[in-house]
Amino acid sequence: MAVSSEFLDGLTPSAIRDITASIREKKSRGIDVVNFAGGMPDAAYFPVKELKQITDEIIEEDSGDLFQYAATDGYLPLREALSDLMKRYQVAANPAEILITSGSAQALNYLSRALICPGDTVLIEEPVYVGAVDTLKSYGPKLVGIPMEEDGMDLEELEKALRKGRASFIYTVPDFQNPSGSTMSVEKRERLVRLAEKYDTYIIEDSPYSLLSFSGGVCPAVKSFDREGRVVYLGSVSKTICPGLRVGWICADQESVRKLIYLKQRDDLQVNNLAQRQVHRYLTGGSFDAHLQEVCGVYKQRMESMLEAVRAYFPKDAVYIPPRGGIFLWLELGGGIDARKLFPYILNRRIAFVPGSFFYANGGGKSTMRLNFCTNEEAVIREKIREMGLAIQAWQAERK
Amino acid sequence: MAVSSEFLDGLTPSAIRDITASIREKKSRGIDVVNFAGGMPDAAYFPVKELKQITDEIIEEDSGDLFQYAATDGYLPLREALSDLMKRYQVAANPAEILITSGSAQALNYLSRALICPGDTVLIEEPVYVGAVDTLKSYGPKLVGIPMEEDGMDLEELEKALRKGRASFIYTVPDFQNPSGSTMSVEKRERLVRLAEKYDTYIIEDSPYSLLSFSGGVCPAVKSFDREGRVVYLGSVSKTICPGLRVGWICADQESVRKLIYLKQRDDLQVNNLAQRQVHRYLTGGSFDAHLQEVCGVYKQRMESMLEAVRAYFPKDAVYIPPRGGIFLWLELGGGIDARKLFPYILNRRIAFVPGSFFYANGGGKSTMRLNFCTNEEAVIREKIREMGLAIQAWQAERK
Repeated sequence: MAVSSEFLDGLTPSAIRDITASIREKKSRGIDVVNFAGGMPDAAYFPVKELKQITDEIIEEDSGDLFQYAATDGYLPLREALSDLMKRYQVAANPAEILITSGSAQALNYLSRALICPGDTVLIEEPVYVGAVDTLKSYGPKLVGIPMEEDGMDLEELEKALRKGRASFIYTVPDFQNPSGSTMSVEKRERLVRLAEKYDTYIIEDSPYSLLSFSGGVCPAVKSFDREGRVVYLGSVSKTICPGLRVGWICADQESVRKLIYLKQRDDLQVNNLAQRQVHRYLTGGSFDAHLQEVCGVYKQRMESMLEAVRAYFPKDAVYIPPRGGIFLWLELGGGIDARKLFPYILNRRIAFVPGSFFYANGGGKSTMRLNFCTNEEAVIREKIREMGLAIQAWQAERK
Repeated sequence: MAVSSEFLDGLTPSAIRDITASIREKKSRGIDVVNFAGGMPDAAYFPVKELKQITDEIIEEDSGDLFQYAATDGYLPLREALSDLMKRYQVAANPAEILITSGSAQALNYLSRALICPGDTVLIEEPVYVGAVDTLKSYGPKLVGIPMEEDGMDLEELEKALRKGRASFIYTVPDFQNPSGSTMSVEKRERLVRLAEKYDTYIIEDSPYSLLSFSGGVCPAVKSFDREGRVVYLGSVSKTICPGLRVGWICADQESVRKLIYLKQRDDLQVNNLAQRQVHRYLTGGSFDAHLQEVCGVYKQRMESMLEAVRAYFPKDAVYIPPRGGIFLWLELGGGIDARKLFPYILNRRIAFVPGSFFYANGGGKSTMRLNFCTNEEAVIREKIREMGLAIQAWQAERK
């Protein structure tokens, strides 16, 4: 027998894992798959050399507290550095308004645990980051999807949903959203906060991609329009430095942070000390901005190569919005294509993507797909998106 | 306003934090306090030099996956090393039966979330590790305390409690328990598992101290008597290597581990990669046993110095059981002493301990105290335990 409860037994692997498993199965048979399905940044651009040097320095200078227990709220110099970083989003937050977490994933879990009672309504974007949906769902809410527009959530639809009864919170990824690539307009950000005030709810602003801006410009955070402590900002270095360190943060008013510290004390006590110091040194060491510029430059070129190939070889009725940052391109294929059925056909050609319907919490998105443009080199992108486009056209022709 | 919910607003700082806060307040006024109150190992004996070298090697040899996302279950070589380590407790577990967590604290949180519904009964030791109580309580169970004897839980009392209705699980720290220092006899370990079988419940065996044995001998884990998958073992390197890495593990049957992976996917995805590799290399690098021997030797001498001073200067009716390992000495002062009232009197003499009543989830333990013997040097221990003993006697005399 195994440990068992209604709750535990009800958990399932992430739906998207089937995709990952199919790819892994191919690879295990020695078949190389070009993967546009992943959600990760390109490891080739992690600042490994700097991290190595920083790590040496940190251990060298350790005066005995590096490996000991530390405070739950996090390493103060890191909280100070993140307080500085938040200024880029026009958020004035002091270090006491920041709590270090094991990635922003953990932060979302804390907020979900804190704010969701079974049956509560949570408003999410549609399409939506599937990892967030899994976390939210584990607390038993009713998830109501708000359609995404080119400039973020459809706020008319949001207000309609808010009128129907109190929501625990609104979950949004305003910058270069996963999966749609869409960025919320500044005007909508302000209106979103006003709606949260009017309908007495909170906003969870999950923004791991915000610094991956192809224009170099950074949008003011939704949090920057917060007058009443209604917005909780979740940050992460997973996409800007690297994910393996597991460092993220919550930025909220001090009272909220204090309560969330009590929650973290009942969970894992604190984040790994070395990782907190690595991130602190990297953020304050002077090379972070050059690094960001390099990564954004590479990702932008890859995105453009992908778009070029999509335009040339994908069915002409495919619709997309050129992303202004981040790592994902979102496509609506049109022509009634069922992307889940298309998936194995394309995978047999050793190319993987994610059918977009995985990103709809309540069904939909049949003809959509998500492509990660950041992890393959331009030549590979050009060749494989061409192959993929031609294969889609062939698949359509076969079905006519 | 701050984020708010009945659940979140009901969380309070750990009661023991008041103790920590009083000590910190003294220190902030430049008053040095000799601290026997802490729950940490001695940082002076962390294997910093080896960890530094290991860290260099790991980063040097990184082939690109060190800083990338990794699998939720944990770094396979570490799970293999822990599978080997479990043999010391006579537990045969393959790597698929091990899940890496952010310390055993996180592991207990996962099991609590998985198995406790509000109102469920959880059976705990009395006295009990206060951090565990905070975690358990956050899921709303009824906590029933089972008195500790010299050789672990009173199993007659446990069976009485089990007869009253199903328990979600029994929580035990069988080795050098925090706070009592008591170790469960081998015979009781087996009987405990049989009781769990008879009354259809689980056992959470939380064993961070088990390798800190002063005799060098290691007890077979409660888990080693498990025939039906009823025991979940929680391990940690926090007391044997260092706490700042935040590496612990769950050892359970493969089906349980699979389900708990789904839970971790909804939480923080995975443990920091570097920390997992550091622990793997340290455990397999050849110096772990010599390190353990050194630490245990030092801790044992400190414990003996403390006992000697207690015998010489504490009130004659003080009762204690010499711990056979771990880091805590538990005292019953007798004479109706209220240790909470005694605390400020002793703290004014710049010495801190924890009143034992903090370790009783449902009240009790008025005259008890917990002393950490591992973090101060022998000379300090001798002098300060002497001062403390004389102060207690003076305090008693004043009250006669």
